[in-house]
Amino acid sequence: MTYCVAIRCNEGLVFGSDSRTNAGMDNVNTYSKMHVFAYQDDRLIVLLSAGNLGTTQQVVNTLRKAVEEQESENLRSCRSMDDVAAYVGRVSQRVQHGYTMSGGFDSGVTFIVGGQIGQAPHNIYLVYQEGNYISCSERKPFLQIGEIKYGKPILDRIIDADIPLEDAARCALVSIDSTIRSNVTVGPPVELLLYRADSLEVFQHLVLDHDTPYLATIEREWAMALRRGFDGLPRFAWEIPENDTDAVTTVLHPIAHN
Amino acid sequence: MTYCVAIRCNEGLVFGSDSRTNAGMDNVNTYSKMHVFAYQDDRLIVLLSAGNLGTTQQVVNTLRKAVEEQESENLRSCRSMDDVAAYVGRVSQRVQHGYTMSGGFDSGVTFIVGGQIGQAPHNIYLVYQEGNYISCSERKPFLQIGEIKYGKPILDRIIDADIPLEDAARCALVSIDSTIRSNVTVGPPVELLLYRADSLEVFQHLVLDHDTPYLATIEREWAMALRRGFDGLPRFAWEIPENDTDAVTTVLHPIAHN
Repeated sequence: MTYCVAIRCNEGLVFGSDSRTNAGMDNVNTYSKMHVFAYQDDRLIVLLSAGNLGTTQQVVNTLRKAVEEQESENLRSCRSMDDVAAYVGRVSQRVQHGYTMSGGFDSGVTFIVGGQIGQAPHNIYLVYQEGNYISCSERKPFLQIGEIKYGKPILDRIIDADIPLEDAARCALVSIDSTIRSNVTVGPPVELLLYRADSLEVFQHLVLDHDTPYLATIEREWAMALRRGFDGLPRFAWEIPENDTDAVTTVLHPIAHN
Repeated sequence: MTYCVAIRCNEGLVFGSDSRTNAGMDNVNTYSKMHVFAYQDDRLIVLLSAGNLGTTQQVVNTLRKAVEEQESENLRSCRSMDDVAAYVGRVSQRVQHGYTMSGGFDSGVTFIVGGQIGQAPHNIYLVYQEGNYISCSERKPFLQIGEIKYGKPILDRIIDADIPLEDAARCALVSIDSTIRSNVTVGPPVELLLYRADSLEVFQHLVLDHDTPYLATIEREWAMALRRGFDGLPRFAWEIPENDTDAVTTVLHPIAHN
Protein backbone atom coordinates (compact mmCIF):
# COMPACT_ATOMS: atom_id res chain seq x y z
CA MET A 1 0.00 0.00 0.00
CA THR A 2 0.99 3.61 -0.35
CA TYR A 3 0.07 6.97 1.08
CA CYS A 4 0.89 10.22 -0.70
CA VAL A 5 -0.43 13.71 -0.02
CA ALA A 6 0.05 17.07 -1.71
CA ILE A 7 -1.01 20.46 -0.40
CA ARG A 8 -1.38 23.73 -2.27
CA CYS A 9 -1.25 26.89 -0.18
CA ASN A 10 -0.63 30.48 -1.12
CA GLU A 11 3.01 30.23 -0.06
CA GLY A 12 3.71 27.17 -2.20
CA LEU A 13 3.34 23.40 -2.43
CA VAL A 14 4.05 20.47 -0.14
CA PHE A 15 4.48 16.87 -1.30
CA GLY A 16 4.68 13.93 1.12
CA SER A 17 4.95 10.19 0.58
CA ASP A 18 5.80 6.96 2.34
CA SER A 19 8.21 4.44 0.80
CA ARG A 20 6.74 1.00 1.40
CA THR A 21 5.74 -1.26 -1.48
CA ASN A 22 4.33 -4.73 -1.29
CA ALA A 23 3.45 -7.39 -3.80
CA GLY A 24 1.63 -9.54 -1.29
CA MET A 25 2.31 -9.36 2.44
CA ASP A 26 5.45 -11.48 2.04
CA ASN A 27 7.12 -9.25 -0.51
CA VAL A 28 7.65 -5.87 1.10
CA ASN A 29 10.24 -3.43 -0.18
CA THR A 30 11.21 0.24 -0.11
CA TYR A 31 10.89 2.46 -3.17
CA SER A 32 10.67 6.21 -3.45
CA LYS A 33 7.23 7.30 -4.66
CA MET A 34 8.32 10.89 -5.23
CA HIS A 35 9.77 11.83 -8.61
CA VAL A 36 11.19 15.31 -9.13
CA PHE A 37 11.57 16.90 -12.57
CA ALA A 38 13.59 20.07 -12.00
CA TYR A 39 14.34 22.27 -15.02
CA GLN A 40 15.97 25.34 -13.55
CA ASP A 41 14.60 28.81 -14.19
CA ASP A 42 11.73 27.36 -16.20
CA ARG A 43 9.64 24.84 -14.29
CA LEU A 44 9.53 22.41 -11.39
CA ILE A 45 7.30 19.35 -11.56
CA VAL A 46 6.81 16.71 -8.85
CA LEU A 47 5.09 13.37 -9.38
CA LEU A 48 3.72 11.12 -6.60
CA SER A 49 2.51 7.61 -7.45
CA ALA A 50 0.27 4.92 -5.94
CA GLY A 51 -0.39 1.60 -7.61
CA ASN A 52 1.48 -0.80 -9.86
CA LEU A 53 5.23 -0.28 -9.42
CA GLY A 54 6.10 -1.54 -12.91
CA THR A 55 3.70 0.93 -14.52
CA THR A 56 5.03 3.73 -12.30
CA GLN A 57 8.66 3.11 -13.25
CA GLN A 58 7.84 2.89 -16.94
CA VAL A 59 5.80 6.10 -16.84
CA VAL A 60 8.63 7.95 -15.04
CA ASN A 61 11.21 6.60 -17.49
CA THR A 62 9.02 7.55 -20.44
CA LEU A 63 8.61 11.10 -19.09
CA ARG A 64 12.38 11.52 -18.57
CA LYS A 65 13.28 10.00 -21.94
CA ALA A 66 10.81 12.24 -23.78
CA VAL A 67 12.59 15.31 -22.37
CA GLU A 68 16.07 13.93 -23.09
CA GLU A 69 15.18 13.05 -26.67
CA GLN A 70 13.22 16.26 -27.12
CA GLU A 71 10.12 14.45 -28.34
CA SER A 72 7.35 16.66 -29.72
CA GLU A 73 5.41 16.30 -26.46
CA ASN A 74 7.35 16.25 -23.20
CA LEU A 75 7.34 17.79 -19.72
CA ARG A 76 9.32 20.81 -20.93
CA SER A 77 7.05 21.44 -23.91
CA CYS A 78 3.84 21.47 -21.82
CA ARG A 79 2.61 25.08 -21.57
CA SER A 80 0.70 24.76 -18.29
CA MET A 81 0.41 22.46 -15.28
CA ASP A 82 -3.00 21.51 -16.67
CA ASP A 83 -1.25 20.31 -19.85
CA VAL A 84 1.22 18.37 -17.69
CA ALA A 85 -1.62 16.55 -15.89
CA ALA A 86 -3.28 15.63 -19.21
CA TYR A 87 0.07 14.47 -20.64
CA VAL A 88 0.86 12.30 -17.61
CA GLY A 89 -2.62 10.77 -17.94
CA ARG A 90 -1.97 9.90 -21.61
CA VAL A 91 1.45 8.39 -20.90
CA SER A 92 -0.04 6.36 -18.05
CA GLN A 93 -2.76 5.02 -20.37
CA ARG A 94 -0.24 4.07 -23.06
CA VAL A 95 1.93 2.20 -20.55
CA GLN A 96 -1.01 0.38 -18.94
CA HIS A 97 -2.43 -0.70 -22.30
CA GLY A 98 0.92 -2.26 -23.19
CA TYR A 99 0.44 -5.05 -20.66
CA THR A 100 -1.49 -8.29 -21.06
CA MET A 101 -4.34 -8.31 -18.56
CA SER A 102 -4.91 -11.42 -16.52
CA GLY A 103 -7.07 -12.31 -13.55
CA GLY A 104 -6.14 -10.32 -10.47
CA PHE A 105 -3.44 -8.31 -12.25
CA ASP A 106 -3.94 -4.58 -11.99
CA SER A 107 -1.56 -2.38 -13.94
CA GLY A 108 -3.29 0.78 -12.71
CA VAL A 109 -1.50 3.74 -11.15
CA THR A 110 -2.90 6.93 -9.66
CA PHE A 111 -0.67 10.01 -9.73
CA ILE A 112 -0.51 13.36 -8.04
CA VAL A 113 1.36 15.83 -10.20
CA GLY A 114 2.13 19.38 -9.15
CA GLY A 115 4.49 22.24 -9.64
CA GLN A 116 4.81 25.51 -11.44
CA ILE A 117 5.67 26.62 -14.97
CA GLY A 118 7.05 30.11 -15.47
CA GLN A 119 4.80 32.76 -13.96
CA ALA A 120 1.60 30.70 -14.09
CA PRO A 121 0.11 29.80 -10.70
CA HIS A 122 1.47 26.77 -8.87
CA ASN A 123 -1.03 23.91 -8.71
CA ILE A 124 -1.55 20.21 -7.94
CA TYR A 125 -3.59 17.60 -9.84
CA LEU A 126 -4.81 14.10 -9.21
CA VAL A 127 -4.46 11.91 -12.35
CA TYR A 128 -6.75 8.89 -12.12
CA GLN A 129 -5.72 5.53 -13.48
CA GLU A 130 -8.18 6.07 -16.35
CA GLY A 131 -6.12 9.08 -17.43
CA ASN A 132 -8.58 11.82 -16.45
CA TYR A 133 -7.59 14.36 -13.81
CA ILE A 134 -8.81 16.98 -11.34
CA SER A 135 -7.26 19.98 -9.63
CA CYS A 136 -7.49 20.30 -5.85
CA SER A 137 -10.50 22.02 -4.28
CA GLU A 138 -10.28 25.73 -3.46
CA ARG A 139 -11.65 25.29 0.06
CA LYS A 140 -9.72 22.12 0.94
CA PRO A 141 -6.58 22.51 -1.17
CA PHE A 142 -5.06 19.07 -0.73
CA LEU A 143 -5.04 15.79 -2.66
CA GLN A 144 -4.37 12.25 -1.44
CA ILE A 145 -3.73 8.91 -3.15
CA GLY A 146 -3.42 5.35 -1.83
CA GLU A 147 -4.46 4.64 1.76
CA ILE A 148 -6.12 8.04 2.20
CA LYS A 149 -8.63 7.75 5.03
CA TYR A 150 -6.55 7.46 8.22
CA GLY A 151 -4.68 10.66 7.41
CA LYS A 152 -7.60 12.73 6.15
CA PRO A 153 -9.16 14.02 9.41
CA ILE A 154 -6.13 16.13 10.37
CA LEU A 155 -5.93 17.61 6.85
CA ASP A 156 -9.66 18.41 6.99
CA ARG A 157 -9.12 20.32 10.22
CA ILE A 158 -5.86 22.16 9.56
CA ILE A 159 -5.35 22.82 5.84
CA ASP A 160 -6.55 25.96 4.08
CA ALA A 161 -5.02 28.21 1.44
CA ASP A 162 -3.61 30.65 4.01
CA ILE A 163 -1.59 28.10 6.00
CA PRO A 164 2.15 28.88 6.15
CA LEU A 165 4.24 26.50 4.02
CA GLU A 166 6.07 24.90 6.97
CA ASP A 167 2.79 24.33 8.84
CA ALA A 168 1.39 22.61 5.75
CA ALA A 169 4.50 20.40 5.69
CA ARG A 170 4.11 19.54 9.40
CA CYS A 171 0.44 18.70 8.78
CA ALA A 172 1.48 16.38 5.93
CA LEU A 173 3.92 14.66 8.32
CA VAL A 174 1.23 14.20 10.99
CA SER A 175 -1.16 12.86 8.35
CA ILE A 176 1.47 10.35 7.16
CA ASP A 177 2.35 9.41 10.76
CA SER A 178 -1.32 8.62 11.52
CA THR A 179 -1.50 6.43 8.41
CA ILE A 180 1.71 4.57 9.26
CA ARG A 181 0.39 3.86 12.77
CA SER A 182 -2.92 2.44 11.46
CA ASN A 183 -1.78 0.55 8.33
CA VAL A 184 1.30 -1.65 8.54
CA THR A 185 1.70 -1.65 4.74
CA VAL A 186 2.42 2.11 4.79
CA GLY A 187 5.90 2.78 6.14
CA PRO A 188 8.95 5.00 6.40
CA PRO A 189 11.18 6.51 5.25
CA VAL A 190 8.90 9.47 4.67
CA GLU A 191 9.79 11.87 1.88
CA LEU A 192 8.80 15.50 2.17
CA LEU A 193 9.30 18.19 -0.45
CA LEU A 194 8.54 21.88 0.04
CA TYR A 195 8.26 24.27 -2.88
CA ARG A 196 8.06 28.05 -2.43
CA ALA A 197 5.79 29.72 -4.98
CA ASP A 198 7.57 31.48 -7.87
CA SER A 199 10.99 30.07 -6.94
CA LEU A 200 10.93 27.40 -9.70
CA GLU A 201 13.28 25.28 -7.60
CA VAL A 202 13.07 22.79 -4.73
CA PHE A 203 13.12 24.60 -1.37
CA GLN A 204 13.54 21.50 0.83
CA HIS A 205 13.53 17.79 0.01
CA LEU A 206 13.86 15.62 3.11
CA VAL A 207 14.00 11.90 3.68
CA LEU A 208 12.90 11.11 7.23
CA ASP A 209 13.25 7.68 8.75
CA HIS A 210 12.03 6.53 12.17
CA ASP A 211 15.47 7.27 13.58
CA THR A 212 15.62 10.76 12.10
CA PRO A 213 15.36 12.97 15.19
CA TYR A 214 12.84 15.38 13.67
CA LEU A 215 10.38 12.65 12.62
CA ALA A 216 10.81 10.86 15.95
CA THR A 217 10.16 14.16 17.78
CA ILE A 218 7.06 14.95 15.71
CA GLU A 219 5.69 11.45 16.33
CA ARG A 220 6.31 11.70 20.07
CA GLU A 221 5.07 15.27 20.49
CA TRP A 222 1.94 14.62 18.47
CA ALA A 223 1.13 11.50 20.48
CA MET A 224 1.59 13.52 23.68
CA ALA A 225 -0.52 16.42 22.37
CA LEU A 226 -3.37 14.04 21.49
CA ARG A 227 -3.12 12.43 24.92
CA ARG A 228 -3.15 15.82 26.68
CA GLY A 229 -6.05 17.01 24.52
CA PHE A 230 -7.98 13.82 25.20
CA ASP A 231 -7.35 13.97 28.94
CA GLY A 232 -8.59 17.59 28.96
CA LEU A 233 -11.96 16.82 27.37
CA PRO A 234 -14.99 17.73 29.52
CA ARG A 235 -16.46 15.04 31.78
CA PHE A 236 -19.90 13.51 31.45
CA ALA A 237 -22.54 15.04 33.73
CA TRP A 238 -22.49 12.07 36.12
CA GLU A 239 -18.71 12.34 36.58
CA ILE A 240 -18.93 15.91 37.88
CA PRO A 241 -19.21 16.50 41.63
CA GLU A 242 -22.30 18.60 42.28
CA ASN A 243 -20.40 21.33 44.06
CA ASP A 244 -18.05 21.92 41.15
CA THR A 245 -19.68 25.00 39.63
CA ASP A 246 -16.93 25.51 37.06
CA ALA A 247 -17.67 22.19 35.44
CA VAL A 248 -19.29 22.09 32.03
CA THR A 249 -23.03 21.60 32.36
CA THR A 250 -24.30 18.86 30.13
CA VAL A 251 -27.84 18.05 29.07
CA LEU A 252 -28.12 14.47 27.94
CA HIS A 253 -31.05 12.42 26.73
CA PRO A 254 -31.01 9.13 28.57
CA ILE A 255 -33.14 6.37 27.11
CA ALA A 256 -35.23 4.10 29.28
CA HIS A 257 -34.92 0.33 29.05
CA ASN A 258 -37.25 -2.19 30.55
CA MET B 1 -22.93 4.64 5.31
CA THR B 2 -22.58 3.81 8.96
CA TYR B 3 -20.00 3.96 11.67
CA CYS B 4 -20.27 1.85 14.83
CA VAL B 5 -17.61 1.13 17.43
CA ALA B 6 -17.51 -1.06 20.54
CA ILE B 7 -14.84 -1.10 23.23
CA ARG B 8 -14.15 -3.72 25.88
CA CYS B 9 -12.23 -2.56 28.92
CA ASN B 10 -11.83 -4.05 32.36
CA GLU B 11 -14.48 -1.73 33.76
CA GLY B 12 -17.07 -2.66 31.17
CA LEU B 13 -18.25 -2.07 27.61
CA VAL B 14 -18.91 0.97 25.44
CA PHE B 15 -21.05 0.97 22.31
CA GLY B 16 -21.27 3.93 19.94
CA SER B 17 -23.09 4.47 16.65
CA ASP B 18 -24.20 7.16 14.24
CA SER B 19 -27.76 7.26 12.89
CA ARG B 20 -27.53 8.10 9.21
CA THR B 21 -28.77 5.70 6.56
CA ASN B 22 -28.78 6.21 2.84
CA ALA B 23 -30.13 4.29 -0.10
CA GLY B 24 -28.33 6.41 -2.65
CA MET B 25 -27.23 9.96 -1.95
CA ASP B 26 -30.77 11.27 -2.52
CA ASN B 27 -32.42 9.03 0.04
CA VAL B 28 -30.92 9.83 3.42
CA ASN B 29 -32.71 9.03 6.64
CA THR B 30 -32.16 8.55 10.35
CA TYR B 31 -32.39 5.13 12.00
CA SER B 32 -30.98 3.88 15.24
CA LYS B 33 -28.27 1.29 14.66
CA MET B 34 -28.10 0.29 18.32
CA HIS B 35 -30.40 -2.46 19.54
CA VAL B 36 -30.57 -3.28 23.24
CA PHE B 37 -31.77 -6.63 24.60
CA ALA B 38 -32.06 -6.16 28.35
CA TYR B 39 -33.15 -9.15 30.43
CA GLN B 40 -32.77 -8.00 34.00
CA ASP B 41 -30.63 -9.93 36.47
CA ASP B 42 -29.67 -12.41 33.79
CA ARG B 43 -28.04 -10.82 30.75
CA LEU B 44 -27.59 -7.64 28.75
CA ILE B 45 -26.92 -7.86 25.01
CA VAL B 46 -26.30 -4.95 22.63
CA LEU B 47 -26.31 -5.22 18.85
CA LEU B 48 -24.81 -2.66 16.43
CA SER B 49 -25.45 -3.00 12.71
CA ALA B 50 -23.93 -1.80 9.43
CA GLY B 51 -25.30 -2.72 6.03
CA ASN B 52 -28.68 -3.48 4.51
CA LEU B 53 -31.41 -1.86 6.63
CA GLY B 54 -34.09 -4.37 5.64
CA THR B 55 -31.91 -7.30 6.69
CA THR B 56 -31.04 -5.52 9.95
CA GLN B 57 -34.65 -4.90 10.90
CA GLN B 58 -35.66 -8.47 10.07
CA VAL B 59 -32.75 -9.89 12.09
CA VAL B 60 -33.64 -7.72 15.10
CA ASN B 61 -37.32 -8.65 14.83
CA THR B 62 -36.44 -12.34 14.52
CA LEU B 63 -34.23 -12.15 17.63
CA ARG B 64 -36.97 -10.44 19.67
CA LYS B 65 -39.72 -12.77 18.45
CA ALA B 66 -37.65 -15.87 19.27
CA VAL B 67 -37.41 -14.71 22.89
CA GLU B 68 -41.09 -13.78 23.11
CA GLU B 69 -42.21 -17.09 21.66
CA GLN B 70 -39.60 -19.02 23.66
CA GLU B 71 -38.24 -20.76 20.62
CA SER B 72 -35.72 -23.55 21.30
CA GLU B 73 -32.87 -21.22 20.37
CA ASN B 74 -33.09 -17.58 21.39
CA LEU B 75 -31.02 -14.81 23.03
CA ARG B 76 -32.09 -15.96 26.51
CA SER B 77 -31.27 -19.60 25.88
CA CYS B 78 -27.71 -18.89 24.68
CA ARG B 79 -25.27 -19.98 27.38
CA SER B 80 -22.41 -17.64 26.53
CA MET B 81 -21.70 -14.48 24.57
CA ASP B 82 -19.83 -16.71 22.14
CA ASP B 83 -23.08 -18.64 21.57
CA VAL B 84 -24.88 -15.33 21.05
CA ALA B 85 -22.42 -14.29 18.33
CA ALA B 86 -22.81 -17.64 16.55
CA TYR B 87 -26.62 -17.45 16.86
CA VAL B 88 -26.76 -13.89 15.45
CA GLY B 89 -24.60 -15.08 12.54
CA ARG B 90 -27.01 -17.94 11.80
CA VAL B 91 -30.09 -15.70 11.97
CA SER B 92 -28.37 -13.16 9.69
CA GLN B 93 -27.60 -15.90 7.15
CA ARG B 94 -31.19 -17.18 7.19
CA VAL B 95 -32.57 -13.68 6.64
CA GLN B 96 -30.12 -12.85 3.85
CA HIS B 97 -30.77 -16.10 2.01
CA GLY B 98 -34.49 -15.34 2.01
CA TYR B 99 -34.04 -12.55 -0.54
CA THR B 100 -33.80 -12.79 -4.31
CA MET B 101 -30.39 -11.56 -5.38
CA SER B 102 -30.18 -9.15 -8.28
CA GLY B 103 -27.45 -7.03 -9.80
CA GLY B 104 -26.13 -4.43 -7.39
CA PHE B 105 -28.40 -5.55 -4.53
CA ASP B 106 -26.51 -6.41 -1.37
CA SER B 107 -28.51 -7.87 1.49
CA GLY B 108 -25.39 -8.14 3.66
CA VAL B 109 -25.13 -6.84 7.22
CA THR B 110 -22.17 -6.78 9.58
CA PHE B 111 -22.93 -6.79 13.31
CA ILE B 112 -21.11 -6.03 16.50
CA VAL B 113 -22.70 -7.91 19.37
CA GLY B 114 -21.60 -7.57 22.97
CA GLY B 115 -22.73 -7.85 26.54
CA GLN B 116 -22.58 -10.17 29.48
CA ILE B 117 -24.40 -13.31 30.60
CA GLY B 118 -24.49 -14.11 34.30
CA GLN B 119 -21.03 -14.21 35.80
CA ALA B 120 -19.18 -14.99 32.55
CA PRO B 121 -16.83 -12.26 31.36
CA HIS B 122 -18.25 -9.37 29.35
CA ASN B 123 -17.16 -9.41 25.72
CA ILE B 124 -17.73 -8.02 22.23
CA TYR B 125 -17.81 -9.82 18.86
CA LEU B 126 -17.80 -8.83 15.23
CA VAL B 127 -20.23 -10.97 13.20
CA TYR B 128 -19.36 -10.86 9.50
CA GLN B 129 -22.03 -10.90 6.83
CA GLU B 130 -21.02 -14.49 6.03
CA GLY B 131 -22.09 -15.46 9.55
CA ASN B 132 -18.63 -16.14 11.02
CA TYR B 133 -17.40 -14.04 13.93
CA ILE B 134 -14.38 -12.91 15.95
CA SER B 135 -13.84 -11.54 19.41
CA CYS B 136 -11.90 -8.30 19.89
CA SER B 137 -8.11 -8.40 20.25
CA GLU B 138 -6.60 -8.49 23.74
CA ARG B 139 -4.12 -5.70 23.00
CA LYS B 140 -6.46 -3.43 21.07
CA PRO B 141 -9.82 -4.30 22.60
CA PHE B 142 -12.15 -2.51 20.21
CA LEU B 143 -14.19 -3.43 17.13
CA GLN B 144 -15.50 -1.22 14.34
CA ILE B 145 -17.97 -1.70 11.48
CA GLY B 146 -18.95 0.47 8.50
CA GLU B 147 -16.81 3.50 7.67
CA ILE B 148 -14.01 2.48 10.04
CA LYS B 149 -10.82 4.19 8.90
CA TYR B 150 -11.27 7.86 9.78
CA GLY B 151 -12.01 7.03 13.41
CA LYS B 152 -9.38 4.32 13.92
CA PRO B 153 -6.21 6.38 14.64
CA ILE B 154 -7.53 7.82 17.93
CA LEU B 155 -8.69 4.36 19.07
CA ASP B 156 -5.25 2.94 18.20
CA ARG B 157 -3.62 5.58 20.38
CA ILE B 158 -5.94 5.70 23.40
CA ILE B 159 -7.71 2.38 23.94
CA ASP B 160 -6.35 -0.41 26.11
CA ALA B 161 -7.91 -2.79 28.60
CA ASP B 162 -7.10 -0.55 31.58
CA ILE B 163 -8.82 2.59 30.31
CA PRO B 164 -11.59 3.88 32.63
CA LEU B 165 -15.09 3.31 31.24
CA GLU B 166 -15.91 7.01 30.80
CA ASP B 167 -12.60 7.65 29.02
CA ALA B 168 -13.40 4.79 26.65
CA ALA B 169 -16.80 6.40 26.00
CA ARG B 170 -15.20 9.80 25.32
CA CYS B 171 -12.73 8.13 22.94
CA ALA B 172 -15.65 6.52 21.09
CA LEU B 173 -17.27 9.97 20.77
CA VAL B 174 -14.06 11.51 19.39
CA SER B 175 -13.71 8.60 16.96
CA ILE B 176 -17.30 9.09 15.75
CA ASP B 177 -16.82 12.89 15.56
CA SER B 178 -13.74 12.44 13.32
CA THR B 179 -15.72 10.12 11.05
CA ILE B 180 -18.69 12.50 10.82
CA ARG B 181 -16.34 15.34 9.86
CA SER B 182 -14.70 13.33 7.06
CA ASN B 183 -17.68 11.38 5.62
CA VAL B 184 -20.93 13.22 4.99
CA THR B 185 -22.90 9.95 4.89
CA VAL B 186 -22.10 9.33 8.58
CA GLY B 187 -24.16 11.63 10.78
CA PRO B 188 -25.75 12.43 14.12
CA PRO B 189 -27.56 11.82 16.36
CA VAL B 190 -24.85 9.75 18.00
CA GLU B 191 -25.91 6.96 20.34
CA LEU B 192 -23.66 5.99 23.19
CA LEU B 193 -24.21 3.15 25.64
CA LEU B 194 -22.05 2.42 28.67
CA TYR B 195 -22.20 -0.91 30.49
CA ARG B 196 -20.47 -1.51 33.82
CA ALA B 197 -19.07 -5.04 34.15
CA ASP B 198 -21.15 -7.42 36.29
CA SER B 199 -24.11 -5.01 36.57
CA LEU B 200 -26.21 -6.85 33.94
CA GLU B 201 -28.02 -3.59 33.20
CA VAL B 202 -27.51 -0.47 31.09
CA PHE B 203 -25.45 2.12 32.97
CA GLN B 204 -25.96 5.02 30.54
CA HIS B 205 -27.64 5.19 27.14
CA LEU B 206 -27.39 8.63 25.55
CA VAL B 207 -28.61 10.10 22.30
CA LEU B 208 -26.46 13.10 21.38
CA ASP B 209 -27.35 15.45 18.54
CA HIS B 210 -25.24 18.33 17.21
CA ASP B 211 -27.22 20.69 19.45
CA THR B 212 -26.72 18.54 22.56
CA PRO B 213 -24.38 20.69 24.66
CA TYR B 214 -22.06 17.82 25.62
CA LEU B 215 -21.47 16.65 22.03
CA ALA B 216 -21.04 20.25 20.84
CA THR B 217 -18.53 20.85 23.66
CA ILE B 218 -16.56 17.68 22.89
CA GLU B 219 -16.43 18.60 19.20
CA ARG B 220 -15.24 22.14 19.96
CA GLU B 221 -12.74 21.18 22.68
CA TRP B 222 -11.27 18.38 20.60
CA ALA B 223 -10.85 20.67 17.58
CA MET B 224 -9.12 23.22 19.83
CA ALA B 225 -6.89 20.56 21.43
CA LEU B 226 -5.78 19.32 18.01
CA ARG B 227 -5.09 22.90 16.91
CA ARG B 228 -3.09 23.64 20.08
CA GLY B 229 -1.18 20.37 19.76
CA PHE B 230 -0.45 21.06 16.10
CA ASP B 231 0.70 24.62 16.78
CA GLY B 232 3.04 23.31 19.49
CA LEU B 233 4.87 20.84 17.24
CA PRO B 234 8.63 21.47 16.91
CA ARG B 235 9.84 23.62 14.02
CA PHE B 236 12.00 22.46 11.14
CA ALA B 237 15.70 23.19 11.53
CA TRP B 238 15.64 26.08 9.04
CA GLU B 239 12.80 27.79 10.96
CA ILE B 240 14.84 28.02 14.15
CA PRO B 241 16.95 31.14 14.80
CA GLU B 242 20.56 30.06 15.35
CA ASN B 243 20.79 31.69 18.75
CA ASP B 244 17.80 29.76 20.10
CA THR B 245 19.63 27.03 21.99
CA ASP B 246 16.47 25.61 23.54
CA ALA B 247 15.10 24.70 20.16
CA VAL B 248 14.89 21.07 19.12
CA THR B 249 17.94 20.14 17.09
CA THR B 250 17.02 18.36 13.91
CA VAL B 251 19.16 16.30 11.59
CA LEU B 252 17.62 16.06 8.18
CA HIS B 253 18.78 14.41 4.99
CA PRO B 254 18.36 16.88 2.18
CA ILE B 255 18.45 15.47 -1.32
CA ALA B 256 20.31 17.24 -4.09
CA HIS B 257 18.60 18.07 -7.37
CA ASN B 258 20.30 19.14 -10.52
